[in-house]
Amino acid sequence: MRPIVFLSDFGNDDDFAGVCHGVMLQRTPGVQVIHLTHGITPQGILHGAVVLRNTLPYMPVAVHLAVVDPGVGTARRAIAVDCADGRSFVGPDNGLMSLAIEASGGAVRAALIESPSFILRPLSATFHGRDVFAPAAAHVAAGGAIDELGPALDPDTIIRLELPQPRIDGASITSEVWNIDQYGNAALHLDATALETAIGSAAHVELTIRTERVYAAVARTFGNVRPGEALLYVDPYGCVSIAVNQGHAASMFRLDPGRDVSIEPVAGRNTLHDAAVAMSPRSR
Amino acid sequence: MRPIVFLSDFGNDDDFAGVCHGVMLQRTPGVQVIHLTHGITPQGILHGAVVLRNTLPYMPVAVHLAVVDPGVGTARRAIAVDCADGRSFVGPDNGLMSLAIEASGGAVRAALIESPSFILRPLSATFHGRDVFAPAAAHVAAGGAIDELGPALDPDTIIRLELPQPRIDGASITSEVWNIDQYGNAALHLDATALETAIGSAAHVELTIRTERVYAAVARTFGNVRPGEALLYVDPYGCVSIAVNQGHAASMFRLDPGRDVSIEPVAGRNTLHDAAVAMSPRSR
Amino acid sequence: MRPIVFLSDFGNDDDFAGVCHGVMLQRTPGVQVIHLTHGITPQGILHGAVVLRNTLPYMPVAVHLAVVDPGVGTARRAIAVDCADGRSFVGPDNGLMSLAIEASGGAVRAALIESPSFILRPLSATFHGRDVFAPAAAHVAAGGAIDELGPALDPDTIIRLELPQPRIDGASITSEVWNIDQYGNAALHLDATALETAIGSAAHVELTIRTERVYAAVARTFGNVRPGEALLYVDPYGCVSIAVNQGHAASMFRLDPGRDVSIEPVAGRNTLHDAAVAMSPRSR
Repeated sequence: MRPIVFLSDFGNDDDFAGVCHGVMLQRTPGVQVIHLTHGITPQGILHGAVVLRNTLPYMPVAVHLAVVDPGVGTARRAIAVDCADGRSFVGPDNGLMSLAIEASGGAVRAALIESPSFILRPLSATFHGRDVFAPAAAHVAAGGAIDELGPALDPDTIIRLELPQPRIDGASITSEVWNIDQYGNAALHLDATALETAIGSAAHVELTIRTERVYAAVARTFGNVRPGEALLYVDPYGCVSIAVNQGHAASMFRLDPGRDVSIEPVAGRNTLHDAAVAMSPRSR
Repeated sequence: MRPIVFLSDFGNDDDFAGVCHGVMLQRTPGVQVIHLTHGITPQGILHGAVVLRNTLPYMPVAVHLAVVDPGVGTARRAIAVDCADGRSFVGPDNGLMSLAIEASGGAVRAALIESPSFILRPLSATFHGRDVFAPAAAHVAAGGAIDELGPALDPDTIIRLELPQPRIDGASITSEVWNIDQYGNAALHLDATALETAIGSAAHVELTIRTERVYAAVARTFGNVRPGEALLYVDPYGCVSIAVNQGHAASMFRLDPGRDVSIEPVAGRNTLHDAAVAMSPRSR
Repeated sequence: MRPIVFLSDFGNDDDFAGVCHGVMLQRTPGVQVIHLTHGITPQGILHGAVVLRNTLPYMPVAVHLAVVDPGVGTARRAIAVDCADGRSFVGPDNGLMSLAIEASGGAVRAALIESPSFILRPLSATFHGRDVFAPAAAHVAAGGAIDELGPALDPDTIIRLELPQPRIDGASITSEVWNIDQYGNAALHLDATALETAIGSAAHVELTIRTERVYAAVARTFGNVRPGEALLYVDPYGCVSIAVNQGHAASMFRLDPGRDVSIEPVAGRNTLHDAAVAMSPRSR
């Protein structure tokens, strides 16, 4: 029996995630469930897709139940997928699982979830997490074959997401915020290699957020800069991120998902002291 | 060993639910706990009772630990109940469990939780979830008899809740909001059958909320109406609910638990196009 | 195999806690995890330390994984500790675990977490919960010895916290708020014995919060006073706390962690009626 790793946009205040948990235990007694997160932005397919992919290396080989499903009750397909590395995925076919499927070596087998044995009756129009995906995930976790869930599906037809790409313009690289965490740190669709290509080994950068300019140190961790100082760092999943040591970057700089940030290297400012001076009002 | 399904108004920010989980594992190592929800409105007995009943069909046959307990430390009774369908309930005797007990075929056996073996010492005056209910639930989950918890109790004396009933007035039916979920959808104490009796097969309705009137489509799911449009739909537990596609109905219409909503069928407006026109300021 | 009790300041909205859970199940399949709380004040070492100690008697004998780690990625040590009562602790050496270690009979053995076998690569600079502490906790939970994690450590060098002490000034005792729970109840660094020494058996007190004075009953539980009335009570962990029956004390009296509250006995006001009169504007 494999564990089930459960990700959704259900939040933690309602009973949505708990009810799906119940359905899974009803169908597969004893199955272990990891609540990876239910804090995906409501209906944030891209957000969910990136979190699902980023966290994959830290999860046991499992059935990954992923539910961010703005099209629930419409024609979008409900699917289950077996991947090359032994992981399986269950969720809506809206791109949510596509990055993780690719990171798992690609789909070796896929099926629609259509068999009445795995769909709860009465089937609700707005909660397929409970009525379709949870029973299917429980079945697969118990060792059941995905082809028992419904007709086979050509894996090439699974909807894929395009990730926003950073844009280079002269010395500046522009990228989009995709996540704000509870500390106010803002993660960009930008990896360390792309950043280095753009800014070289600059120790400081100037960020442009809307029309505002912010000096930031390039640092390994929060404690490497002074309290209140902005920093650019590589987050634990390899995403370039913006933080303020002991502060809340998203509030200070009005950062939100989808917001563009441009990054330029700052010449000659290669010590923390310089950066701190540069941040004070007088020096600007 | 049965799993424990745990519902409370403890929220997710404090250690209340985690501490009860600890007590249960201390007493019954290996027991599985489903955190159904800890997001019941603080002290919302009616809210908790409806969620407990609605979610029951989706839960394994379990010990249901339910703690919404404004009377903690006063004379209200602590009880455990075995039901006809094999489920057991543990919690305060304040009505919280009454709807679920009825939905489980009624009580076949009930007991007060009074035995010192199942009450932690020192007994706190304000946290019987930890000191009384969690140890009792762990005992019952392990297969222990409820009559070991304390003196038998006449099941007929268990406090029952009255659910607010919809009121019919001419062509209009009035009902009360009992839940706002994280998407802003508002559930009414009204089921699909009662709605249909009142409005027939009308495709659109006029809602009266305070003195405000709102046109809404009667639809199966969010995606059946345009973004921003209001809809009346039957939620996954059979409750008639108010939503806005890709919007937050509770904020837009200032809906909150306890608020009355009147619903009237709208004659002659039986296409989504008509409804959309009706919603625009000019047409009103 | 021991269960893992997991406390952090990760919040419930991000994937931090879920990712650590995944790592633990990857390393030790089947291990049970209690999410005690992830609602510790961000970077609140003292807050986490008190919750960890207070809740200890209610937890099974476990591996206690505790992560509140403002110094992540700096020189602070990562440690694992075996205690006299059979519990083990894994987390940063910043004082967070010191009160709980003491409550567990003291450390009998301690080690640095430095062995490459228990540190995920690439090691992030900002998420040692995932890369260092979770793998170590999983190892210890599975029965692994802590000396396999790295070099032994003199337990006497583990950083200890000083708890703020109440100050006596004439008839008044002053203490600091350390926790606000979701109900708005405010817990003080003050136990029942110290309170009684200061105010004797007074049935009512006057609280001074900033420059404001508030009358409060000394009561066992909320239901012992009228709705809206302030009370001083001993919370389930033995901390003297401030509440308002059916109200939110923290909002009403602008209480927050770190805030000083002075408490003085009120002579001659020994009935609830008197207190209620005293609270009305006219009587002041």
